[in-house]
Amino acid sequence: MRIHLVNPNTTRSMTDKIAAAARAVAAPGTDIVAATSSMGPASIEGYYDDALALPGLLAAIAAAEADGVDAHIIACFDDTGLDAARALARAPVVGIGEAGFHLAGLIAHRFAVVTTLSRSIPVIEANLHRYGLDRRCSGVRASDVAVLELEDPASGARERISAEIGRAIAQDRAEAVVLGCAGMADLALALAQEHGVPVIDGVASAVTLAEALVRVGLATSKAGPYAPPRAKAYAGRLADFAPPGN
Amino acid sequence: MRIHLVNPNTTRSMTDKIAAAARAVAAPGTDIVAATSSMGPASIEGYYDDALALPGLLAAIAAAEADGVDAHIIACFDDTGLDAARALARAPVVGIGEAGFHLAGLIAHRFAVVTTLSRSIPVIEANLHRYGLDRRCSGVRASDVAVLELEDPASGARERISAEIGRAIAQDRAEAVVLGCAGMADLALALAQEHGVPVIDGVASAVTLAEALVRVGLATSKAGPYAPPRAKAYAGRLADFAPPGN
Amino acid sequence: MRIHLVNPNTTRSMTDKIAAAARAVAAPGTDIVAATSSMGPASIEGYYDDALALPGLLAAIAAAEADGVDAHIIACFDDTGLDAARALARAPVVGIGEAGFHLAGLIAHRFAVVTTLSRSIPVIEANLHRYGLDRRCSGVRASDVAVLELEDPASGARERISAEIGRAIAQDRAEAVVLGCAGMADLALALAQEHGVPVIDGVASAVTLAEALVRVGLATSKAGPYAPPRAKAYAGRLADFAPPGN
Amino acid sequence: MRIHLVNPNTTRSMTDKIAAAARAVAAPGTDIVAATSSMGPASIEGYYDDALALPGLLAAIAAAEADGVDAHIIACFDDTGLDAARALARAPVVGIGEAGFHLAGLIAHRFAVVTTLSRSIPVIEANLHRYGLDRRCSGVRASDVAVLELEDPASGARERISAEIGRAIAQDRAEAVVLGCAGMADLALALAQEHGVPVIDGVASAVTLAEALVRVGLATSKAGPYAPPRAKAYAGRLADFAPPGN
Amino acid sequence: MRIHLVNPNTTRSMTDKIAAAARAVAAPGTDIVAATSSMGPASIEGYYDDALALPGLLAAIAAAEADGVDAHIIACFDDTGLDAARALARAPVVGIGEAGFHLAGLIAHRFAVVTTLSRSIPVIEANLHRYGLDRRCSGVRASDVAVLELEDPASGARERISAEIGRAIAQDRAEAVVLGCAGMADLALALAQEHGVPVIDGVASAVTLAEALVRVGLATSKAGPYAPPRAKAYAGRLADFAPPGN
Amino acid sequence: MRIHLVNPNTTRSMTDKIAAAARAVAAPGTDIVAATSSMGPASIEGYYDDALALPGLLAAIAAAEADGVDAHIIACFDDTGLDAARALARAPVVGIGEAGFHLAGLIAHRFAVVTTLSRSIPVIEANLHRYGLDRRCSGVRASDVAVLELEDPASGARERISAEIGRAIAQDRAEAVVLGCAGMADLALALAQEHGVPVIDGVASAVTLAEALVRVGLATSKAGPYAPPRAKAYAGRLADFAPPGN
Repeated sequence: MRIHLVNPNTTRSMTDKIAAAARAVAAPGTDIVAATSSMGPASIEGYYDDALALPGLLAAIAAAEADGVDAHIIACFDDTGLDAARALARAPVVGIGEAGFHLAGLIAHRFAVVTTLSRSIPVIEANLHRYGLDRRCSGVRASDVAVLELEDPASGARERISAEIGRAIAQDRAEAVVLGCAGMADLALALAQEHGVPVIDGVASAVTLAEALVRVGLATSKAGPYAPPRAKAYAGRLADFAPPGN
Repeated sequence: MRIHLVNPNTTRSMTDKIAAAARAVAAPGTDIVAATSSMGPASIEGYYDDALALPGLLAAIAAAEADGVDAHIIACFDDTGLDAARALARAPVVGIGEAGFHLAGLIAHRFAVVTTLSRSIPVIEANLHRYGLDRRCSGVRASDVAVLELEDPASGARERISAEIGRAIAQDRAEAVVLGCAGMADLALALAQEHGVPVIDGVASAVTLAEALVRVGLATSKAGPYAPPRAKAYAGRLADFAPPGN
Repeated sequence: MRIHLVNPNTTRSMTDKIAAAARAVAAPGTDIVAATSSMGPASIEGYYDDALALPGLLAAIAAAEADGVDAHIIACFDDTGLDAARALARAPVVGIGEAGFHLAGLIAHRFAVVTTLSRSIPVIEANLHRYGLDRRCSGVRASDVAVLELEDPASGARERISAEIGRAIAQDRAEAVVLGCAGMADLALALAQEHGVPVIDGVASAVTLAEALVRVGLATSKAGPYAPPRAKAYAGRLADFAPPGN
Repeated sequence: MRIHLVNPNTTRSMTDKIAAAARAVAAPGTDIVAATSSMGPASIEGYYDDALALPGLLAAIAAAEADGVDAHIIACFDDTGLDAARALARAPVVGIGEAGFHLAGLIAHRFAVVTTLSRSIPVIEANLHRYGLDRRCSGVRASDVAVLELEDPASGARERISAEIGRAIAQDRAEAVVLGCAGMADLALALAQEHGVPVIDGVASAVTLAEALVRVGLATSKAGPYAPPRAKAYAGRLADFAPPGN
Repeated sequence: MRIHLVNPNTTRSMTDKIAAAARAVAAPGTDIVAATSSMGPASIEGYYDDALALPGLLAAIAAAEADGVDAHIIACFDDTGLDAARALARAPVVGIGEAGFHLAGLIAHRFAVVTTLSRSIPVIEANLHRYGLDRRCSGVRASDVAVLELEDPASGARERISAEIGRAIAQDRAEAVVLGCAGMADLALALAQEHGVPVIDGVASAVTLAEALVRVGLATSKAGPYAPPRAKAYAGRLADFAPPGN
Repeated sequence: MRIHLVNPNTTRSMTDKIAAAARAVAAPGTDIVAATSSMGPASIEGYYDDALALPGLLAAIAAAEADGVDAHIIACFDDTGLDAARALARAPVVGIGEAGFHLAGLIAHRFAVVTTLSRSIPVIEANLHRYGLDRRCSGVRASDVAVLELEDPASGARERISAEIGRAIAQDRAEAVVLGCAGMADLALALAQEHGVPVIDGVASAVTLAEALVRVGLATSKAGPYAPPRAKAYAGRLADFAPPGN
């Protein structure tokens, strides 16, 4: 099985780290095809970055579809472009945010989310609400760690994240914690041991859910809003994104 | 007062029609500065078009900000890019969808939305839910009219929209109707007379709400998720969208 | 355009202050016709005062309708009698509470409400819920200021309100604040400057929303619960409130 | 035990009918003290009548409090003035609408409400939502029977109500039906036999719930919004409603 | 009237205490028939105990039905087995948890629940949500008292419960408190006097609600999910629980 | 990896069919250990059967735990005993109902559930609500097929289920369908081809989700309501279910 994992920001070092986390959990016979967005922000922090990450993300999805992958993973915790990718792709698409929430819902009655910057909280809250899993969430907390600080061991990022996990457990009765950034994938195990509760990495979650969908033989329904884009003209710098006639 | 009205699709004829509707309701002394997106889809129908309309929309917002306008109106009923535009702009930003919903909420206990294609229903339902006004909505109905058919009198579009309004009143106890597409702006008055209930055009609603915000002296709060985008590198074809240092 | 602004409590000094706030924001050509209720409580603080303010409010609405105004504003933050006034009036009716909430929803993702006494909190929470905007509200807070203290500079009311705004921002992540009493209209500007977030006065909000409805040509739908009252006998002290045959 | 039952409309014949229904279910030793409002509408149909029924209702509550009753029942299905009455009274207050909903919730998973005119639907829906029992309700249906028609056997009112109950069972999977008007009290038994599901009369429900509260020794909490009205001046025709100093 | 009160745990001393509380509030002529479960846990603390208490509970309900009682009360605050008991019984069934919530909703705008162990909180929260009364609840708090400690005056249980009630009032604006365990029935009066707010015991509430249903003539609707169990074979140790043909 | 699949009803032929469906999707190296409940109902249809299936289910979970399996699957669409099993087991537990809902949420915006008897609808609706996925569900529909009819080709069960799927798509805008009974596992593929939308079998879904949890290394959090049952005495016929000291 071939799973396309796309990092919608343009920082290749983060893609490498995420791909390693994905390969570590992938089943024997699963091939993780990792891609980095070719255009847009170096990291996704808030609504503006989210919006401008979409063309690069969709270009990568289109290329992987042409290449005939079995599933796609969007490796940004905001699940950036998930709906557009589902409309574009024939293969199933899984976001690492939703993946983490769904697995958390299977092992805890209430889970917390610990993310990077506070400006990401409303995006994550809105996603939880859209998926319906907000009722299961004890709260989304920010550790005030910038995404790119996760690449820098000297930043103290890990300590700030751990402290926020402690507060989620003590103050919000969180029973499990979902790490709210793809760049935190390598911290899950140590933080789980440190705090004695399950700590969930969205990347690993998404790989196993994508494998599950493929094995069960499920792909995105085209009977509703995920129908293929209608053929039409696109103008200017994005003219080449025009959907072909279906 | 100068209000920037941006049509996030790239069809200039639609911009002209929307601008005319906006100028018809603007207060004396309000100048409507209309712009058409320079890149992306010719019409916005579903998640994929929505996503690819964002760069062109944000480019237009940035240009108008540099030009010093007092407010922005996003003239797509999906409120495409509203959050990103609010983060980018200093001036207040109003979407025509939210504008229509808010005014409808002031004159009816339950209002219906009648839009173009059924694939737009989930986008509009999600917006209503985000704004909180879903409880006030008797249902979002599709007239199965393609956006560009609205430009063609021979398409029978008006009749299909009117029939759907009739069903919303008879079957859903709708007391008022919000027209779910910027391209329907010129139909509101006749449809209201035909059906005997208020029929609300989002474009006119957005103009008066933008004027209201400017007159009261309110602009988007920068204390939360609408804080200015963080300075960072953008890559490839979208490199010029990189936010400057604030 | 003539807008009828009614203060549903019987304290004329408060009417004068509210009318001044309304006139300060009204567009050129808008005439604010201010009225004070002729019967009932000197201030509205809780359910009992709310109930007894209704006859005076509705008498004022009826008189202004006979006088042919273009819109009505109910100048009590509880939106006292809003539904009954909409059923009675042909012209649109705007409450200052709902007006503040709707404009706040256009400039902030989450807004707080800071009101007078804690007993008003449930009334405001219920209104927010009815309008659907409770999801947008970070919390309703009471400053423990009695309405009539707002008339007395020596009461320290302004300081207590400012302190509560500070807590709403620090503790509830409020991005904007709606002032929860008509009598606070004159404090908005200074408090916004002091706290660096938008501070919204319901009176100014209601004036611009009423102007918006009139300019767009919208009035309350009579197709639903706001149909005119049925003709019937009224008894005793309120006999003269009997609705005429329609 | 003495229970004060007040009919907030001014039609004495309806009071007599309601009082008879109340006495039929009252426990041995319970004395039903029935009162008719002395001012306001002859029947309550919609927001305007609701508003103008309040002074008469509250006058009756005050008189009964002075008389030292053990509990109050508001005999209008809209639960007109329930919050104001709770603030005014020391003794517990039960509305017949909420009473019917609460008992229905103890014997059915989903219950319907069948009321008189469609304009009452939003009032009842709002009450259900406030109480939290909307999730238990399969729908509020109107039989298009005017309240005073219930007094006229020749009106065909009973047949129209029965037909609507049939639709609630067949179309909405209703397992029980709450009759949505005090004037329907005498129909419950026959309709239950006719349709084979429980049919609930709010008047009987309220009597037994009021008895329950008194026997358990519970009265309205004064720790929150139901604190006694603050002493203040009342003006004009309603001056005598001014709350005394507590 | 004969009311069957079943304690679904197997601790007879608790049954005696609960039965005494029930008889203290029962109306003249009401006979409380108390039963203790014959199989399962000595106390119900969490999901596992809840599940294993069901056979004993249902055996007791079946026996009392055969004996022709007028109503059943399930004397566990978790309302253990309420749905199954309603399907099995012809007579109405009331849980002490729901009974306390419903009466609390008639005397307070917001009530708290104070229970034993924190593991019971999710069960109670889920019940509140199912009944719809979660919106009325200011929070469910645990006093960290084990159920059987309530039998031991030296345990300090009463003091811990009182302290938690104090926090619910001070921190959550609770206006009334429902005691979250049948074993607390004897503490309600003293705690109400100590804290100056209504304190509600579910056992007394359930007795008066059961009497109310019987007097009004209401029993569980069999038109929906509470239809009698279908006749079928049961195997093994529970073979004798097989429902007879209806 | 060894996954314990327990059929909580006592019909071995259904276990065999479910186990076959499970093995058909299991990954290489996954061993499905199937068990049939040793006590209780031959099929689970409604609340009473649900309750009496629990001891047999929990006995099977305990035995498999002692046997050291890696995960448990509860093969009843009602997710019977899911919470109790999570408290009892160290290994993760997945219900086939929740499994089907979670995978459906990854491939469709709105999915329908088609189950057997209408009395199962409230149980499934309550589960959807608990999990949060009710917002994603277009409706739960009953095909009026008894569980044991699924074993009988002559029953016409397949045709009735297919007809209900057709209605869900046509009337409710369902984009995918979850089959609401373990006994329907063998129908999914043919129904998907017939209707052109994804049709989801909970058994296959649960196998892949259980594999996902094990591979990611996640088990039920013991920090909350799923803490191990407290040691205590159990009486009578269920004495041997007493939890050991932890």
